[in-house]
Amino acid sequence: MTQLASMGGDTSADFDDAGGGPTIAPTPYELGTPPGVLDPEELRLVDAWWRAANYLAVGQIYLMANPLLREPLQAEHVKPRLLGHFGTVPGLNLAYVHANRLIKERDLDAVFVAGPGHGGPGPNACAWLEGTYSELYSHIPQDARGMQSFFHQFSFPGGVPSHCAPETPGSFHEGGELGYSLLHAYGAALDSPDLTVFCVVGDGEAETGPLAGSWHAAKFIDPARDGAVLPILALNEFKIANPTILARIPESELFELMRGYGYDPHIVSGDDPGTVHQAFAETLETCLDKIAAIQQQARSAPSELGPDSSAPAWPMIVMRTPKGWTCPPEVDGQRVEGTFRAHQVPLPSAHTDSKHRAVLEQWMKAYRPEELFDDEGRPVPELLALPPTGTRRMSDNPVANGGMLRDLQLPDWRDYGVDVPAPGVQSHEATRVLGGWLRDVTKNNPTNFLTMAPDELASNRLQDILEVTGRKWEIGEGPFDERLDRSGRVIEVLSEHMCEGLLEGYLLSGRHGAFTCYEAFIHIVDSMFNQHAKWLQTSAQVPWRRPIASLNYLLSSHVWRQDHNGLTHQDPGFLDVVLNKDPSVVRIYLPPDANTLLSTFDHCLRSRHYVNVVVAGKQPQFDYLSVEDAALHCARGAGIWEWASNKDDVSTLPDVVLASAGEVPTLEVLAAASILRERLPDLRVRVVNVVDLMRLLPEAEHPHGMPDREFDTLFTATQPVIFAFHGYPWLVHRLTYRRTNHNQFHVRGYKERGTTTTPFDMVMLNDLDRFHLVMDVIDRVPALGARCAGLRQEMEDARLRARTYTREHGMDDPAVSSWTWQG
Amino acid sequence: MTQLASMGGDTSADFDDAGGGPTIAPTPYELGTPPGVLDPEELRLVDAWWRAANYLAVGQIYLMANPLLREPLQAEHVKPRLLGHFGTVPGLNLAYVHANRLIKERDLDAVFVAGPGHGGPGPNACAWLEGTYSELYSHIPQDARGMQSFFHQFSFPGGVPSHCAPETPGSFHEGGELGYSLLHAYGAALDSPDLTVFCVVGDGEAETGPLAGSWHAAKFIDPARDGAVLPILALNEFKIANPTILARIPESELFELMRGYGYDPHIVSGDDPGTVHQAFAETLETCLDKIAAIQQQARSAPSELGPDSSAPAWPMIVMRTPKGWTCPPEVDGQRVEGTFRAHQVPLPSAHTDSKHRAVLEQWMKAYRPEELFDDEGRPVPELLALPPTGTRRMSDNPVANGGMLRDLQLPDWRDYGVDVPAPGVQSHEATRVLGGWLRDVTKNNPTNFLTMAPDELASNRLQDILEVTGRKWEIGEGPFDERLDRSGRVIEVLSEHMCEGLLEGYLLSGRHGAFTCYEAFIHIVDSMFNQHAKWLQTSAQVPWRRPIASLNYLLSSHVWRQDHNGLTHQDPGFLDVVLNKDPSVVRIYLPPDANTLLSTFDHCLRSRHYVNVVVAGKQPQFDYLSVEDAALHCARGAGIWEWASNKDDVSTLPDVVLASAGEVPTLEVLAAASILRERLPDLRVRVVNVVDLMRLLPEAEHPHGMPDREFDTLFTATQPVIFAFHGYPWLVHRLTYRRTNHNQFHVRGYKERGTTTTPFDMVMLNDLDRFHLVMDVIDRVPALGARCAGLRQEMEDARLRARTYTREHGMDDPAVSSWTWQG
Repeated sequence: MTQLASMGGDTSADFDDAGGGPTIAPTPYELGTPPGVLDPEELRLVDAWWRAANYLAVGQIYLMANPLLREPLQAEHVKPRLLGHFGTVPGLNLAYVHANRLIKERDLDAVFVAGPGHGGPGPNACAWLEGTYSELYSHIPQDARGMQSFFHQFSFPGGVPSHCAPETPGSFHEGGELGYSLLHAYGAALDSPDLTVFCVVGDGEAETGPLAGSWHAAKFIDPARDGAVLPILALNEFKIANPTILARIPESELFELMRGYGYDPHIVSGDDPGTVHQAFAETLETCLDKIAAIQQQARSAPSELGPDSSAPAWPMIVMRTPKGWTCPPEVDGQRVEGTFRAHQVPLPSAHTDSKHRAVLEQWMKAYRPEELFDDEGRPVPELLALPPTGTRRMSDNPVANGGMLRDLQLPDWRDYGVDVPAPGVQSHEATRVLGGWLRDVTKNNPTNFLTMAPDELASNRLQDILEVTGRKWEIGEGPFDERLDRSGRVIEVLSEHMCEGLLEGYLLSGRHGAFTCYEAFIHIVDSMFNQHAKWLQTSAQVPWRRPIASLNYLLSSHVWRQDHNGLTHQDPGFLDVVLNKDPSVVRIYLPPDANTLLSTFDHCLRSRHYVNVVVAGKQPQFDYLSVEDAALHCARGAGIWEWASNKDDVSTLPDVVLASAGEVPTLEVLAAASILRERLPDLRVRVVNVVDLMRLLPEAEHPHGMPDREFDTLFTATQPVIFAFHGYPWLVHRLTYRRTNHNQFHVRGYKERGTTTTPFDMVMLNDLDRFHLVMDVIDRVPALGARCAGLRQEMEDARLRARTYTREHGMDDPAVSSWTWQG
Repeated sequence: MTQLASMGGDTSADFDDAGGGPTIAPTPYELGTPPGVLDPEELRLVDAWWRAANYLAVGQIYLMANPLLREPLQAEHVKPRLLGHFGTVPGLNLAYVHANRLIKERDLDAVFVAGPGHGGPGPNACAWLEGTYSELYSHIPQDARGMQSFFHQFSFPGGVPSHCAPETPGSFHEGGELGYSLLHAYGAALDSPDLTVFCVVGDGEAETGPLAGSWHAAKFIDPARDGAVLPILALNEFKIANPTILARIPESELFELMRGYGYDPHIVSGDDPGTVHQAFAETLETCLDKIAAIQQQARSAPSELGPDSSAPAWPMIVMRTPKGWTCPPEVDGQRVEGTFRAHQVPLPSAHTDSKHRAVLEQWMKAYRPEELFDDEGRPVPELLALPPTGTRRMSDNPVANGGMLRDLQLPDWRDYGVDVPAPGVQSHEATRVLGGWLRDVTKNNPTNFLTMAPDELASNRLQDILEVTGRKWEIGEGPFDERLDRSGRVIEVLSEHMCEGLLEGYLLSGRHGAFTCYEAFIHIVDSMFNQHAKWLQTSAQVPWRRPIASLNYLLSSHVWRQDHNGLTHQDPGFLDVVLNKDPSVVRIYLPPDANTLLSTFDHCLRSRHYVNVVVAGKQPQFDYLSVEDAALHCARGAGIWEWASNKDDVSTLPDVVLASAGEVPTLEVLAAASILRERLPDLRVRVVNVVDLMRLLPEAEHPHGMPDREFDTLFTATQPVIFAFHGYPWLVHRLTYRRTNHNQFHVRGYKERGTTTTPFDMVMLNDLDRFHLVMDVIDRVPALGARCAGLRQEMEDARLRARTYTREHGMDDPAVSSWTWQG
């Protein structure tokens, strides 16, 4: 650092008590008028707006009263618990005010993504200065009273979080967990040709894996059809307690890294506000010029992909300014400004320690609030006039509030259904059938529906989508590539984080999509899912937030069919993670065949503001339900399959209920029912299938929850229930433990017994196979037991035979694999 | 691609039936003798070994009989299900054989990490050629019979997975999920100054976030004290169905990226084996020379960190060779070699289609097995003599089998315990107390214990460790940094993936460590945890695998104390993820105070082959148990706290059991017990605390599981149990649903109600507060009810008062927060 602006010099509160209200004078840190693209007047105003935003940020962190410091600062004005992060705020505010200047000058349609965690006071302050805050929250007008409420609510019980959140006007990126800013920014830019996303990336979050990988997201941006992202890497050197990697490597190395990622890096560096303002203003102009040139060229002469294609070198900015810039340089003899100590609250004892409080007062007064706010506490007219107006304000841009949302044109899924002459006889690959429908969804919605896959689109059998589009790709094409396309409607990249993050950005700005993934590896984005679910939960409580399209997962290549991948690829536990989130925003579906999958996915694409998890098979599997029956069954979510039941009618209780949820468990339940029907023809067997897992929950716990009475009708209040479940078995107990008949629920599922083996061997390893289910029935139905010892032994023998066959032949015994339902 | 070696030319099986056994002749692809560092004889042998490894890889994928092709290839020789990935194998084998040459020449202590997924056939083949496979698996001798078993078992039911796995000799890196190869490699290199890790990174996995971030791991490698990693980026251009990003950006851009990451990149590119052999041999020599020079310089004159410090530019290799190199160039008129179609099985119908089978036979014979294996099927003497011997073989290096493991020198935790004159009166920050002990653990074990944190060491109150060491850091130091050190014993980087991956590599090679993380964000590594748990589970079944030290998580900054971070930082669901893994390898502890935390962590650091999850508080919290009591309580895992119970003795049943697990729930349970004692002095209240969550499971389901009899003694078989739990409440139901008294379990926990608020407001939001627990008791104990309507109302009022106070003052009502236990 060459020279730090002294902020503590002039502490005299110099209220203009003459008529005419305050005017904005030169700053105490001798702003000067360094030459540059800003004329002195512009510079003065930009700086004043920046000072105001910084003042409002400090106020949020510290004050609960006396917002304009018009009384001497007392302990009771300062919050008892000081919570918030100032370190990154001045950088955010700097980027914001300069973005505003060019939005106005160029009439840009722009949004702002604040990547640095807990930088909330910055964007909050900007939104208040722009007036949006007061428009959305009537208790926070743009005056002294509003300022007081605005300060008070920040990181205060019942108030707003310290990071950008659903409550933050103009934000569509939660600042809680780090690493996803660029992905959300690029996701919003997709299919938004006129949008510019200013995305500030923290140098802390830049260390995360997801962020490190996501710089490559620019390679999926088509300058002709998509908008632009301008990444601004905020290099303020410090995290909570440590320096950051990118700040400590030589600048030349950082530039190589950015060029290696495909960017054209620019740097703005310094700690003198005037100089930095000029440099940032000029650099921003240059970058926006370059973006415009890239887009203009692509839009005037769109080019095909070819061997020498390369994504344009999009500009990006490295903004190297001090951590906690403009905060007290030293506190208690320790350097603060420009160090990790400025990360959070630079004066942690301001409530209790009068010396800290005096420094706080000096610090805040150094921004000269008396010039920035009038007697009523309103921003002075010059400041009010500075930002753009209406929806050109980034805090009011509808894009940040799902504003691009419109309904999908969905073809009738019934037209894509398979004929089912009889249940359990013909087979289809369920996801392949769905792919046919998704192909036409893609075709019908050419600018607002995308499918994401980590190199697994075809592996999960959705390749029919590629009949109408290609895979989005902007860099070199080789002679043996297939279906790459600059404007493709499918994004494939071997990063679950990137698939998830781009889709989230796309949804949050108001579009639709699906993410297809191997079931086990969706755990890679557990934490991103958590954050998105929390965003949905909270934003549903924010009155001005609009519902967005649901996040739809299609998980295939699931636990039961990892024939050669083995244990590492066997994990159905994402369902357990999903169930922990607020019931109002999560849904789980386990369609057992092709037609139920179609019906389910149609429902998901029509829904709003949920996370829908659909687990489906990609291998050939029996069709059970006709289109009509599938529609009915999915509407019910769970129901009796009378055709598969035996001697079951409403007038008498069944001896046993065989229930299933999931493709493979349903097959085994039906095979078990078939054995029972043949061998114990008098046994009353009810077969129940569950598509919508949330139906199992009590009515009070989930909107889809089944009333007890209905549940008891389905599963009985007294009879044994053998439940074959797709995932970990205890999940069903977790859903049903309040039910009357829970003690009779006996659940089979995946219990972490896996390896490289055949499908039937897998179900045997986990005691989910048909033979074991029959044994379970014998063990649980009191009337059976000893009478069926012979049948039980036969089942044991059948398991042994099947196991031996598999070990010898490397495939399932045809006696098992060629089974079909005999109606 | 300039020129592809023709592999299909000579298909005549030319067995040497004259005396003297086979000799290795020139290859059919006209190896030639391009000039280079290998003399013609060396080149011939290196190439022969490579051919042998490739042959053995193809054999694994296709054959179940006729391994040496000494009979015409028939359908019954070919596996009915062809599973495996050939695409990446020739590259892996190339790197392996060249590494071997220099291991021998320079007597290197080296291990091999195969990053590309499903490349298992390659390292398997190398281990078989080196003899290790046969030494470890007696049913797979190094002859024709062994080769047949070796082929047969691959991706076959009851056999081995298609990727590197615990069963793979010399592997400590599971090849199932992608993205962690560099982290495991660097983790193994830490504190292993003489170790060289050859780490092949797939260009597919290079797209993942974790891998993209982990290139920076070199910045934590001290050339004086740590070993070296040589990354070899296998750029074969394709994933399952798509090109890779790094293969399609200009080479100059890729080089900038690698230089930006801090490396000194070298490239070997081509498809002519002879030329590539020469180039790779020479490049490998150059890189190892550079590594040696870096290490020699650092070790001869160790330097302090300073402003201009920079990590050395470690060499790395870009290896650009065709996907499926040496496989049939075309199949069914479609290009295969060098395209994504070579990713998995190039001839998918070889079992059923005689034309495919004929091509397979040609392909395998083109490696000329008759020169490579003698009449008995043993590798010919020249091949046997080629690799290094004993533990210099990478397949037999003990490092890859936890070989560096030795016990930790643990100071007696009792000496670090806090004095507890009476329970619930004095307070300590539990993790701060633990930090004192960990400081001395660190000091006592200067080369085999590391602590990892995503910038949260001090935030989680473990800063005392920094009294004896610094934070490991090899790049520039600034004037305001604190406790950075080239040889620090703490690694802080804002990437949970990097913390986890480095620690895994460190543990897998036989060292010890801990990972401290914010509770909510440990979800970021859910999937890495899953994979590590699966590795532990499987490796415990592999007889020659040694147990390794446990992976110890210390989760703090937990759900109940996110005062200013709010909902985004509130997620205790990692416990649910952990519980899904095999019970033999997972443990969860919830110590309620400082001494129990000490005792727990001591136990964890002594344990082997587990994942231990410890959730503890960092804020001041009451001490309850003396050192002696803590030791006893932790040994039991769960027990009655008699001092907190009321009128509870063994001869009579309590009226109610108040149980807790976790710091904050325990506080609330004690406060509730205190209210009940005062207000309902005749009520028999038993207070139970659970430290070891697995104790709740049935005996048959977990090694720590409590027998039913003991469980019923603790929780009764008939009385209401109000259970206050740290995490999501249904988790306790999942653990206890089989117990006699489960219907009487009433669990309070976190139910996704969170925001920016005070600690007591948080427990109120989730009905876990003391007042609500008292209400629960009134509602559940039949004898109370109407008689206690007044008390119930008081509790409601107390909640309202507390809530109002918080909203007004921004802090908890002192009436609540100043509560202490009155014994």
